Amino acid sequence: MARYVVDVMPKPEILDPQGKAVLGALPRLGFEGVLDVRQGKRFEIEVEGEASDDVLAEVIKMAGTLLSNPVIEDFEVHVEGSTVGGGKHSAEALA
Amino acid sequence: MARYVVDVMPKPEILDPQGKAVLGALPRLGFEGVLDVRQGKRFEIEVEGEASDDVLAEVIKMAGTLLSNPVIEDFEVHVEGSTVGGGKHSAEALA
Repeated sequence: MARYVVDVMPKPEILDPQGKAVLGALPRLGFEGVLDVRQGKRFEIEVEGEASDDVLAEVIKMAGTLLSNPVIEDFEVHVEGSTVGGGKHSAEALA
Repeated sequence: MARYVVDVMPKPEILDPQGKAVLGALPRLGFEGVLDVRQGKRFEIEVEGEASDDVLAEVIKMAGTLLSNPVIEDFEVHVEGSTVGGGKHSAEALA
């Protein structure tokens, strides 16, 4: 069994109202010195069999079509607890 | 400027309806072989100054009080692009 992690974050040029809400709440709760907060999603995906480049390609496709909205979000896929197929991926890599 | 990443995931014993919805949608979209999906949140927090153990302690406090619900969620804090103060943390570490 292989576990993949997909991190989905709003693109830098996209306004992130959830992150801004957290940023606004921090000083009220006594936390100073925070410059910016961005909020995104994290998916942990358990797949049958061993981690491989084929499975990684499937997960990247999944991330680009179901887990993220390519208009407003970027994603990264990495394998948990393995050196196979790590690294950054963006929606552009699908094209 | 230091950037911290806080990953917030539902505890293993907690039902995760968002993850289950994704898991149910995958076969319909032609993705086979996925055993489980868990969905959580990812926060990227930019803090003034250099990464240090003091700042890490602040971010852990932030994660435990504002960014996660300790009843149903676990969190991990790590520093991006640095070796200072990485590693796993759970809400229990605050007690």
